[in-house]
This record gives sequence, C-alpha cells and structure tokens, in this order.
Amino acid sequence: MTIQLYDLAGQDDDCRFSPHCWRVKMALAHKGLAFEALPWRFTEKDAIAESGQGQVPVLRDGDRLVHESWQIADYLDEAYPERPPLFEGPQARAHALMIRHWAQRSLHPAVVQVIMPELFEALHEKDKPYFRESREALFGKTLEAFAGDRDEKLANLGKALAPLRDTVKLQPYLGGEAPSFADFIVFGAFQWARAVCPVALVAEDDPVHAWRGRLMEAYDGLAAKAKGFPV
Amino acid sequence: MTIQLYDLAGQDDDCRFSPHCWRVKMALAHKGLAFEALPWRFTEKDAIAESGQGQVPVLRDGDRLVHESWQIADYLDEAYPERPPLFEGPQARAHALMIRHWAQRSLHPAVVQVIMPELFEALHEKDKPYFRESREALFGKTLEAFAGDRDEKLANLGKALAPLRDTVKLQPYLGGEAPSFADFIVFGAFQWARAVCPVALVAEDDPVHAWRGRLMEAYDGLAAKAKGFPV
Repeated sequence: MTIQLYDLAGQDDDCRFSPHCWRVKMALAHKGLAFEALPWRFTEKDAIAESGQGQVPVLRDGDRLVHESWQIADYLDEAYPERPPLFEGPQARAHALMIRHWAQRSLHPAVVQVIMPELFEALHEKDKPYFRESREALFGKTLEAFAGDRDEKLANLGKALAPLRDTVKLQPYLGGEAPSFADFIVFGAFQWARAVCPVALVAEDDPVHAWRGRLMEAYDGLAAKAKGFPV
Repeated sequence: MTIQLYDLAGQDDDCRFSPHCWRVKMALAHKGLAFEALPWRFTEKDAIAESGQGQVPVLRDGDRLVHESWQIADYLDEAYPERPPLFEGPQARAHALMIRHWAQRSLHPAVVQVIMPELFEALHEKDKPYFRESREALFGKTLEAFAGDRDEKLANLGKALAPLRDTVKLQPYLGGEAPSFADFIVFGAFQWARAVCPVALVAEDDPVHAWRGRLMEAYDGLAAKAKGFPV
C-alpha cells in the first residue's frame, strides 16, 4: 500500500502550507518513496486520533503510524536503509538537531511575523476559530496585532537568515553537496510562506534564494509544482 | 616536533581568551595531539607573517603552517585520520558549518555585548589602541557604548542561546553522544567570557550550563584548568 501522509490544507484542498509537513514530503521524495498526501484540517482531530495526538504530519506506512517530522525522518531512515539517507550518520543527525531548533526558535517566528495576515485568510473556515484561539494564546497577542510594517518584518527575517545565508554561500545545501533532512527542515518554512503569501521573503540576489530554488526544483520539482505564489 | 599554536593572550600570559583559539585547543585535545600554545598579541603580526595573514589561531605542525580554526579542523582530520575525528563525515561537517555561522552571527555578538568592558581591560597594553580602533570600526560604536544594563544583555544572550539549550536538553553534545568540532566552536565563546569576565553567562540550572560543564571537564579538564573566573 502507498504511504499516506496527513497533510495540513487550507480552504482550498491544494493549499498545503504546513512547514512541518513539507519537511516530510521532501524527505519522502529524497528517499524516492511514493506517497499520497491527504488533505487534513486542524479541527479534524478524529482522523488522526489513532496516532495518539492531534497534529500533523502523521504518516501511515502499512501498519505503522508515525507522527512528528523528526520522528518520521528517523523512521524512514530505519525502515528504508537501502534508499538515500536523510542523515548520513549519528553525528550528522545530532548536528541537524541544532539546525532544527534554530529553525523553530529563530526562523519560524520571523516568518510568521511576515505571513500571518495571509496565513489566517488561507485557512479553512472551520479551522479559523481554533487557529485564532490557539495562536493568540501561543503568541500572547491578537492575530490583528501581526499587521504592521512589513518592510521592518522582512528586515528582521533577513537578519534571522544570516547563518543560513553564510552557509549556502559556501556550499550548495546545508547537507553539503546534496540535500539532507536539515535542508528540508529549513526549506519547509519557505514553502509555508509561498503557499499562502505573495510576498517574497528574500531578494533574488540573496544566496538563500538560490538555495531555495535548488530545493524547489529537486525531485522533479515537487515543491515548485505545489500550488503557491510565484515568489 | 610538538605542534605549536599561536594563541591570543592578554596582559597576563596565562589569560587565553580567544574563542577561535579555544576551538583549536579543544580539537587538538579531542584528537589526543600534544601541543604548545604560544602566547601571542594582536599587534605581533610579524610572528605569524609566514601564514600570509595577521590573525590567530595559526598552527605549526612540522613544516605545515595552517591558519583559521575551520581550516585547522580540516587539516587535523586529514593529517591524523587514525585519531578521533572532528567530523564523522561530509554531511556532519556540512551541518557543522551552519552551527559555525550561527555562533558567529547570533552567539558571539550577544556574548561580546556582555563581556566587552572586562575584555578590553584584560588586553595587553600594547594591544589596546589596535583593539579599540578595529572593534569600534567593526561595531560602529565606541567601546564605552558597550557599557549599560548587563541584566538586559544577559537576557538577550539567554534568548540567543535558545537553539543550543533546546538541543542539549535532548543529547549531551551538539555532536550527539560525544563532542564534535561543532561543540568546540560554540564552547569557545564560553571560554572567551570565562577568561576575562566574572559574570556567569547562564544560570546553574540551565541545560547549557551542564553542557558547558561536560566540555570544561573533558580531556583531563583542559578548559577547566585554564586561567579564568570560577563561573
């Protein structure tokens, strides 16, 4: 049976914006594994209740149900060791954990400041009350308070991206000559934005733009072909 | 002939504060290589002129002269492949490059905000004019402008450390179960502070404190035995 992935969707079934689900879709493509990405909404907790929690990504592979993108990456490397690895070894995996936490602590907060107005609008109507309540509690402010000077927010994002920029000036991918799961972790944030927001996160002459472009075109253009804004 | 390292020193020969030199000293210890760390001052450009540039670390191993900590790490893994690796493979090395740039873009600027007054005082008198001129140009402000609310600066450092904190909650070292050169890169910033400044960078119950403690005691306490404040 084909691998199935519960994949967050917006009002439109084709709007697949979850950065965490993008980590997994890129990982599946990297390993050359066919999969079906099932649209799922925040409030469809019953559909994934079997996973013992309420968030996606949730991956079903035959009898196995695995949730959370890092655990899914580990599962894929363990279950499919003959396919291209997401982590080349324990130290590469350990270092990627730091990149994961950089993405979550520095990158995601800077991106969400830019895209929040459009992100909220892209949601399925039935998800909006849940999203508003959970995110306003998480951020400690109203969604409306995210409106504001977008140029300033983009400048902050530009600063947050400095370590990534410095790195992809020196090598094509975070993984070196080929992408690793660390690339997919960071790239997920760019697909999150592209799916919902027409604003370019980086300038075309930014080395980050070129790195993102390489990942957009990888795996037969999986990411480039996904519905999103041409930014 | 024993490996020699030109190692930045302060007014006191035993005050070895360079974060970049600490990366290399930890790397040499990790590989079990004996070395002599020669005190060097910013203005002693002639002593290292043979390296073709004017900054330390500079490492002399027989006929070979290698400068810059990342290049020295590569040299050590290439020249001593039978000894414990600094990088377990190309992908581990590639990921560490991102951690290096995180250290340089996020960690070092936050640390220098805290320690600048004491750092300047610790310098050799003959280095002070050079340091003032070069750093005031680099930071675009006077050294005196670094004075200010240290609690606020420590709070900013605490936020900058979030990705490291999250990571060492989950594994003992950035390298996983054992330290890698990524650990030494980040740890260098803590030895920089400890050599010159009596202020604790993190609280004792911070997971970063425990991680730092493991590295302080590693390699027969190389870092713990170095002259510094008991913080």
